[in-house]
Amino acid sequence: MTEDSKSTNIVWHQAQVSQSDRETQVGHKGAVLWFTGLSGSGKSTIANAVEAALHDRGCRTYVLDGDNIRHGLNKNLGFSDEDRQENIRRIGEVTKLFCDAAVLTLTAFISPFQSDRDAVRELAGDRFIEVFVNTPIEICEQRDPKGLYQKARAGEIPEFTGISSPYEAPESPEIDVHTDEQSIEECAQQVVDYLVTNQFISA
Amino acid sequence: MTEDSKSTNIVWHQAQVSQSDRETQVGHKGAVLWFTGLSGSGKSTIANAVEAALHDRGCRTYVLDGDNIRHGLNKNLGFSDEDRQENIRRIGEVTKLFCDAAVLTLTAFISPFQSDRDAVRELAGDRFIEVFVNTPIEICEQRDPKGLYQKARAGEIPEFTGISSPYEAPESPEIDVHTDEQSIEECAQQVVDYLVTNQFISA
Repeated sequence: MTEDSKSTNIVWHQAQVSQSDRETQVGHKGAVLWFTGLSGSGKSTIANAVEAALHDRGCRTYVLDGDNIRHGLNKNLGFSDEDRQENIRRIGEVTKLFCDAAVLTLTAFISPFQSDRDAVRELAGDRFIEVFVNTPIEICEQRDPKGLYQKARAGEIPEFTGISSPYEAPESPEIDVHTDEQSIEECAQQVVDYLVTNQFISA
Repeated sequence: MTEDSKSTNIVWHQAQVSQSDRETQVGHKGAVLWFTGLSGSGKSTIANAVEAALHDRGCRTYVLDGDNIRHGLNKNLGFSDEDRQENIRRIGEVTKLFCDAAVLTLTAFISPFQSDRDAVRELAGDRFIEVFVNTPIEICEQRDPKGLYQKARAGEIPEFTGISSPYEAPESPEIDVHTDEQSIEECAQQVVDYLVTNQFISA
């Protein structure tokens, strides 16, 4: 190794690929689509439908949900208030990284507290898009795909959101979808339209 | 919403975009290039050079390093043995997610312990590529870009890797680069060549 190439180390380190470089490469912005809503509201279903639609358009996409987070990054967290907050904090930090990587990142977590969601918004800035999956609890409980409401009503699950623990509806979500009135396809289309209108992706 | 579209919720949830779908879209595999080596060995420099080369080829890339991890996801961790282990564990879990998103993920952390690196290898399976930045400590200390060795020698930094805390060199790294003998460009090319030879990316 020559003295010259040694001295270029610093310069090389500076020559990083930036978020802007990655966005130019892929042709869309990085963003965080933060789906929030009750258990059974349809968060994962819609997030996956949106991801499929975006993928078909050639976008970089990724969905973070209980399946890939609770058994991985956050497997050492429980359900205390402190751990729930740390759960959302870590997810928020990961979405920031994915956003920096120019990925349209979709998250599907109940995330019942406004303060936790606001903290993530703070991180992601104008790349944060709050999607309220606004399904009445009666419908969620009727669907009860995992039988959780039944268990919660029987007292088998303490602090279950909507039953024995509060859900704080978003105060001013960027997107509000109603799965009791719209089909999954319509909800997904509404999200995609928002991204186009707000120039995260091209038409 | 019709009864029909309600009943398709489960099907929609199943219709997820997979790692394989994303890899087909982008034309290369997801992988974890785990750079390990002493402070000042050149991990970040080479990782950034490799990222630039891969980005120029149109690959999806991202670098995780102290800059974007220590002040974000892992800002609530210190430098105790337990926290150092948790630091690497979380980074490993994040690389697994990026790898699933079909991103060529590069990490630049000292990661001195074989057991921690092996745990990440366990997570990422055959997508894990250990890159040993094999720079003698004398060279690292001579470079000392952040003045850390000087502080460590003065006793101002406890448990400094290579001085007062061990560095366990990789037992069988996939790639071994020597910044005391090779230029940064040569080291970066060696990594890119490995990816081509092992069909992570096309030639």
